[in-house]
Amino acid sequence: MFDKVDQLGVNTIRTLSIDMIQKANSGHPGLPMGAAPMAYVLWTRQMNINPSTHLNWKNRDRFILSAGHGSALLYSMLHLSGYEVTIDDLKQFRQWESKTPGHPEYGHTDGVEATTGPLGQGISMAVGMAMAERHLAAEYNRPGYPVMDHYTYTIVGDGDLMEGVSHEAASLAGHLKLGKLIVLYDSNGISLDGPTSAAFTENVGARFQAYGWEHIYVEDGNDLEAINEAIELAKKNPAQPSLIEVKTTIGYGAEKQGTNSVHGNPLGEDGVKFAKKSYGWTYPEFTVPVEVAQRFKEEVQDKGEKSEEQWNAMFTAYKKEYPELAQKLSDGFSSKVLGTLQDILPQYNQNDSIATRSASEKAINALAPKLPQLWGGAADLSSSNKTMMVGEADFQPDSYEGRNLWFGVREFGMACAMNGIMLHGGTRVYGGTFFVFSDYLKAAIRLSALQKQPVIYVLTHDSVAVGEDGPTHEPIEQLAGLRAIPNVQVLRPADGTETSAAWEVALNTLDRPTLLVLSRQNLKTLPLPQSTVFEGVAKGGYVVAQSSKNIADGILIATGSEVNLALKAREELLAKGQDVSVVSLPSLERFEQQDDDYKNSVLPPSITKRVTIEAASTFGWAKYAGSAGLTLGIDNFGASAPGDLVLDKYGMNTQNIVNKFLSL
Amino acid sequence: MFDKVDQLGVNTIRTLSIDMIQKANSGHPGLPMGAAPMAYVLWTRQMNINPSTHLNWKNRDRFILSAGHGSALLYSMLHLSGYEVTIDDLKQFRQWESKTPGHPEYGHTDGVEATTGPLGQGISMAVGMAMAERHLAAEYNRPGYPVMDHYTYTIVGDGDLMEGVSHEAASLAGHLKLGKLIVLYDSNGISLDGPTSAAFTENVGARFQAYGWEHIYVEDGNDLEAINEAIELAKKNPAQPSLIEVKTTIGYGAEKQGTNSVHGNPLGEDGVKFAKKSYGWTYPEFTVPVEVAQRFKEEVQDKGEKSEEQWNAMFTAYKKEYPELAQKLSDGFSSKVLGTLQDILPQYNQNDSIATRSASEKAINALAPKLPQLWGGAADLSSSNKTMMVGEADFQPDSYEGRNLWFGVREFGMACAMNGIMLHGGTRVYGGTFFVFSDYLKAAIRLSALQKQPVIYVLTHDSVAVGEDGPTHEPIEQLAGLRAIPNVQVLRPADGTETSAAWEVALNTLDRPTLLVLSRQNLKTLPLPQSTVFEGVAKGGYVVAQSSKNIADGILIATGSEVNLALKAREELLAKGQDVSVVSLPSLERFEQQDDDYKNSVLPPSITKRVTIEAASTFGWAKYAGSAGLTLGIDNFGASAPGDLVLDKYGMNTQNIVNKFLSL
Repeated sequence: MFDKVDQLGVNTIRTLSIDMIQKANSGHPGLPMGAAPMAYVLWTRQMNINPSTHLNWKNRDRFILSAGHGSALLYSMLHLSGYEVTIDDLKQFRQWESKTPGHPEYGHTDGVEATTGPLGQGISMAVGMAMAERHLAAEYNRPGYPVMDHYTYTIVGDGDLMEGVSHEAASLAGHLKLGKLIVLYDSNGISLDGPTSAAFTENVGARFQAYGWEHIYVEDGNDLEAINEAIELAKKNPAQPSLIEVKTTIGYGAEKQGTNSVHGNPLGEDGVKFAKKSYGWTYPEFTVPVEVAQRFKEEVQDKGEKSEEQWNAMFTAYKKEYPELAQKLSDGFSSKVLGTLQDILPQYNQNDSIATRSASEKAINALAPKLPQLWGGAADLSSSNKTMMVGEADFQPDSYEGRNLWFGVREFGMACAMNGIMLHGGTRVYGGTFFVFSDYLKAAIRLSALQKQPVIYVLTHDSVAVGEDGPTHEPIEQLAGLRAIPNVQVLRPADGTETSAAWEVALNTLDRPTLLVLSRQNLKTLPLPQSTVFEGVAKGGYVVAQSSKNIADGILIATGSEVNLALKAREELLAKGQDVSVVSLPSLERFEQQDDDYKNSVLPPSITKRVTIEAASTFGWAKYAGSAGLTLGIDNFGASAPGDLVLDKYGMNTQNIVNKFLSL
Repeated sequence: MFDKVDQLGVNTIRTLSIDMIQKANSGHPGLPMGAAPMAYVLWTRQMNINPSTHLNWKNRDRFILSAGHGSALLYSMLHLSGYEVTIDDLKQFRQWESKTPGHPEYGHTDGVEATTGPLGQGISMAVGMAMAERHLAAEYNRPGYPVMDHYTYTIVGDGDLMEGVSHEAASLAGHLKLGKLIVLYDSNGISLDGPTSAAFTENVGARFQAYGWEHIYVEDGNDLEAINEAIELAKKNPAQPSLIEVKTTIGYGAEKQGTNSVHGNPLGEDGVKFAKKSYGWTYPEFTVPVEVAQRFKEEVQDKGEKSEEQWNAMFTAYKKEYPELAQKLSDGFSSKVLGTLQDILPQYNQNDSIATRSASEKAINALAPKLPQLWGGAADLSSSNKTMMVGEADFQPDSYEGRNLWFGVREFGMACAMNGIMLHGGTRVYGGTFFVFSDYLKAAIRLSALQKQPVIYVLTHDSVAVGEDGPTHEPIEQLAGLRAIPNVQVLRPADGTETSAAWEVALNTLDRPTLLVLSRQNLKTLPLPQSTVFEGVAKGGYVVAQSSKNIADGILIATGSEVNLALKAREELLAKGQDVSVVSLPSLERFEQQDDDYKNSVLPPSITKRVTIEAASTFGWAKYAGSAGLTLGIDNFGASAPGDLVLDKYGMNTQNIVNKFLSL
């Protein structure tokens, strides 16, 4: 099945990668040289993609290079396959504004399905993609119409499989019986520091079998036939995800092949010569032999175009027979702003008092019937995070149509899976855990932000008001840490209405993740019209109580559970002759995006007597307090005791706010 | 071997736990009721501890309740075993300032070896403890003198084993053949949200075998004999860590035993009655039957006292035969301030230019021969993080005396292991990774801080100057996020000398973790005497270049690689008639701890024309810039290109600083 042109194709991948890295004088040649055969076989014989329509074909196979440092391999594949990655782009590897950055970046380079580099997250996003595929298949496929029916592939390295998140995601994938997930393991026994035998001697195959995976072993990583057969075998097992362990030689063909010195450094001029000689390669640098180009045209582009045409024909027929389903499917894939959801979302009366996590639950359940694309779950905390859609099935191997996701106690794996689900397209997803455990999944929030994916994180139990569970469960620094991430939107609503508004904002946000930071304890409804609150939350900040003076005596700035506290303090200050306004700042990021006029209307620069109030680290609040103001917060760890008492002991009370203000 | 008193002892643990939780009206009864038998057997028959000397006996067995939410179990054990936890303390469970907080807290409650609650970290810290034990044994044991020779035990739940970090740590433990690590797995098939069958169906035993562990199965979690035999069996295998999977019933004896409704809620009055009746328990609440107290006295306290006495006798003889070793061992365990290390640490000339990661490497290697307690390594990045001690052996199964640690690509596991190593005592440890991957281990830094453990984190490649590797590898928000954690000390040195000083500070800090944030690129030596720099770094901030005016025209405030940039900008500003001072702020936390006089001398409040400069998120800098100042930083993700170019494109250049200042 494989001939000399195929072998030439493999070496083309290798030499393109070598040339890119040598020209950039930076990069990782080891993986492309060793894993070129598996990539070649996968793309030319197995993957069902259509480069001419980029990433638009919904039912294309997905591919993630989990070992993102091997980006030169991926760019070579993209070029050869006909994506918009030219030879000139390859020559610009790792240069300013090039299409070929050091690690693959989703949304930046045509054909790249996910941003990778932070190890372990690629395979975990692949799990999410495979989950999305199964879910959409269950929802939309009808007899004779497998409109969603594709594989998800990923190439992983030893480093990926050492990372804990890969364990979490793999265990979940095994549980979910994601048979259309196929992982190619570039098993070369070498990592950055040297042989993996120094730290990684587990039996990886047995480990994956323990997770419920099929383990397939390919002894010779250069044996194209064997690799192809292994993938065929994996495809024949629809009930288990497959790990194809391919024994390779890192930096195959290099003088120092099989050692860590070829992992992350250019080969050097002599090294390049040596390697090319070992391949019998006689072309000038950056050459794609015509027969190789032709082979890729036939095996990837032509097959892909035909395949998508067939699918399109099927979808046209499907659309006739199931117009509503087809519309729903297309709607799911076309991310668009939904507009106002005020009529759908829960409303609250002045006398209501509700934990914002419960208000979020109400919002989810109000949205569920209207937004069929929405699904979500929690990392084994659905009863605490209030993430369950009532009356909907669980997403399980025998009920992939279920909309309630069970991630297990795997926060990081959950977040990566959500990134994969969003990258796949077709749905909107949310996932919950305790706010303090955002620490566990922070690296994935960063990738949501970097990839511009509107994942919704439901983070409850948002302050020391958690109470009895004590400091390990009480967030302090998390708000500051997460607000500092670029392209992240943190929303900490102050009551039920702000929570409804926050959900509206989250769903209408398409280019960044939203972090809903929610209270465990009940919070009184703010004394404002719903429309004011919705508008204010969308702007990130607004005046909740206006001073009756033209120029207020001061401003109390608060978020979440502290807004009600600020309102009480305002009453007391009024009694003491101080007429201050109260500002709610549910989202600093959104507020910063407003124009100066608006910002100055909420926080007039002339009013410098300010106290900021948030039951969390004061880090970052000086910006709003100003040099003349004060920040009230908690700059030490929490304590175990009833929540109200902890808040009070930590100074989160009306009296302290009043005293702080009067001290100005 | 077990009699009726033992059974009564088991039920005493259960009923004490039930009563604590019921009185607090908060807590997790499920684990204590199900796992009481294994805890009972472990503490009364196997663990070698001496409660009368608290945690002072160096060779005591270590125990961590990894499933920290089951704290009532631990407090019951501590009380029964004779630690300073009284019945009154148990009655104060989860109350303000009680000795019995919601989750076990190291340093707060006598007998608690580690703070647990964030799942997966307990077992991972246990791995660190077992590593420390083997290392010290290899260093200090001599024929006939096994001065370090103890077991490390932990009880884990399903949640612990779902967390990725437990996979990382377990894989490392298997590789390291930590035969004296014994994990009791409370396998009850229930987690917070329901049966684990909803998300966790892997074969845990086979998984651990794949890591190189022995897997021992106990079918009946109430069978004291079987549990005891299993532990004996585990002890007989010195070459492998052991996972003893004990099948239990969550909330054993409760009306709703075996369901998630007994996981995290008090039983209620009727529920308490039901459970006690099922145990045949007729005592009043909070009762320890005298025969049970007597059994604990004999089996735990008396045995423990005798055991420590024997060890003390051995150590006295050892001290005579090996006085230097004995002294070194004791020194390692007595954490004390070392005082000035200026003579030992590397010095730099004005013309030197060195990456601070390389200066750190020089510091480590200068310290290595003088500080035998120091050891460390990296998460497969030692060649990048520059963490290797030259000429020292690797810590491996056949060379536990080695001082170079190989953690594999397991950042979080590394950090937890370091917490365990420090909690064990006897050494000082450091561990490295890329700064951007501090995201992966952030939750463990938090536990370093909460437990007041002086772990040293070596975090290199600290800004977009990383360059070609691009945004996935370029820290932006990490500095802000980590500075916001209470009790953490972040140090970002500006040159070789500041790096030496930072290492001095780190080693002389005993009550909190230190994060050394280091550059990939070379940085010129600051034009200052070494003593000025050492003093300045210790204070967290100092004037690097004084204005010649009494009142400077302004202040440029910078950290790390940006200090040299600020100095250059100062020159240019001087040429434009602006005479500004330059301040280096390597540690905001340390600077904040100085008195107002000092702080005002460095940053005079009257000088309001200020620009802060840091190649990272500006979040948090407004505090130092003041309302009239400006913050210069990077509030978006990085880019792939040569580092100098990225810095320049992102405005991290002299011209931009000058322009910003002049715009004020």
